[in-house]
Amino acid sequence: MEPSSPDYREAVTRIFDTAHFVRDLGIELKEIGPGWCETLLRIERKHLQQDGVVHAGVIATMADHTAGASSASLIPVSTIVLTVEFKVNFLRPATGEALRCRAEVLKPGKMLIVSESEVYARRGEEETLVAKALVTLAVVPDPHG
Amino acid sequence: MEPSSPDYREAVTRIFDTAHFVRDLGIELKEIGPGWCETLLRIERKHLQQDGVVHAGVIATMADHTAGASSASLIPVSTIVLTVEFKVNFLRPATGEALRCRAEVLKPGKMLIVSESEVYARRGEEETLVAKALVTLAVVPDPHG
Amino acid sequence: MEPSSPDYREAVTRIFDTAHFVRDLGIELKEIGPGWCETLLRIERKHLQQDGVVHAGVIATMADHTAGASSASLIPVSTIVLTVEFKVNFLRPATGEALRCRAEVLKPGKMLIVSESEVYARRGEEETLVAKALVTLAVVPDPHG
Amino acid sequence: MEPSSPDYREAVTRIFDTAHFVRDLGIELKEIGPGWCETLLRIERKHLQQDGVVHAGVIATMADHTAGASSASLIPVSTIVLTVEFKVNFLRPATGEALRCRAEVLKPGKMLIVSESEVYARRGEEETLVAKALVTLAVVPDPHG
Repeated sequence: MEPSSPDYREAVTRIFDTAHFVRDLGIELKEIGPGWCETLLRIERKHLQQDGVVHAGVIATMADHTAGASSASLIPVSTIVLTVEFKVNFLRPATGEALRCRAEVLKPGKMLIVSESEVYARRGEEETLVAKALVTLAVVPDPHG
Repeated sequence: MEPSSPDYREAVTRIFDTAHFVRDLGIELKEIGPGWCETLLRIERKHLQQDGVVHAGVIATMADHTAGASSASLIPVSTIVLTVEFKVNFLRPATGEALRCRAEVLKPGKMLIVSESEVYARRGEEETLVAKALVTLAVVPDPHG
Repeated sequence: MEPSSPDYREAVTRIFDTAHFVRDLGIELKEIGPGWCETLLRIERKHLQQDGVVHAGVIATMADHTAGASSASLIPVSTIVLTVEFKVNFLRPATGEALRCRAEVLKPGKMLIVSESEVYARRGEEETLVAKALVTLAVVPDPHG
Repeated sequence: MEPSSPDYREAVTRIFDTAHFVRDLGIELKEIGPGWCETLLRIERKHLQQDGVVHAGVIATMADHTAGASSASLIPVSTIVLTVEFKVNFLRPATGEALRCRAEVLKPGKMLIVSESEVYARRGEEETLVAKALVTLAVVPDPHG
């Protein structure tokens, strides 16, 4: 896939730095290329639900945000992506040291982009697929651009 | 619908108090009855994404957790509900003073419960529907019960 | 909600008459207004799956098509709606004489419309909710208009 | 993944032969192994919607049924799978000579199985991804077994 802007890395990095919710959660941008993105989250006490596993909301946020970043790598300057909807299946309990999310664009587009995210839980050397999401995003003019 | 346990209010209240992620976010249990639940979130800076509206992840977490609580009102003692999957549509930008979420069970069950959540943004006296979710939950034995 | 075209009833009726798959299935348009639509399907042997209940694909088609019609009631002349994605929960086995579907638009829009569909199974005087869907549609120029 | 029954091929073949709706549509079982399945549909006039492309309902049915077959390869004798819910994104218009669907189980389970389906449209030698689905299935006792 072709990035529409040569500066897409900076644009996406800026999104991670200025989104309070994502920064406070601790979701870090690891790598990004045209049509894909990887993020990491070190699991802390604050991410847990009542039974000690990572809350579904944390995983959903990571899947959504990483899909957004994978899509943002493909859009023109002065546009942004907004999540129209997403669906996420929680496959296994998320426990361990960290979560890794990889999102890949299934369908680029001028108006709509569809991306899929996989979230893995890391424990030592091992990784387990804990969630899978399908995300629909709209490309819209940047209100601040 | 019939609550399976007379103490469902206490059980659900305990979930809200012990789930770090939900408590830190500030999602409060407002009202609960057999098969439904309402929650409230006062919008703060920490809930926002890069463009100043509430992050999709916050809304998804609220929709999921409230659906979970509506389902927890119907299950037997010594069981809990786990989110199997959910889908959420973001209908309008979420801005204002607070979010209110109402979840209602569409289908109670011994193994699976399906609940739908609506999230409204409050600005002064006005409320706007900003998101709608369909949530599938599994009823499983409480590992600590 | 406001219909964008005064002839929306005729436009939607034409869709039901010219869509081979929907006509062959036997999905009939019952009533339509601005932002909503109702359809009916008399259950026949051909709609069943291996275990004697209506196949999930029939119910999904009905939910999708009725949501499309509810959305088509709101769009300008020379545009059509295309399903971007949908999600459907099957709540109870669908058996009886007929299925009724009602779709209502949750969010009208120039580019995207979100509609929800409920499918009910009729047995004698009784109706049971058997499925619920959330459908995202795109408004695009009519390639033949 | 391990098939729970040595006769899973016959069991799945029987599903395709006795499901009226799927047989009438023309969805054929091509290949099946433990945790995956491939099906084929030759596109005919009856599959089309008003604008000449394959109806979303046909694609959704294929995605759902193939996911069901991929899951049925893993379940014990005297059980069946039922679709709890699915979500499908339509990525590109489906036109050409045939549709091919491949489903793979993401998470096997005793109670619930999650499978993902990809649908490709074939035109001559070329294949295009036209839809992607995430399907949740329940494993239940066979009422006729």
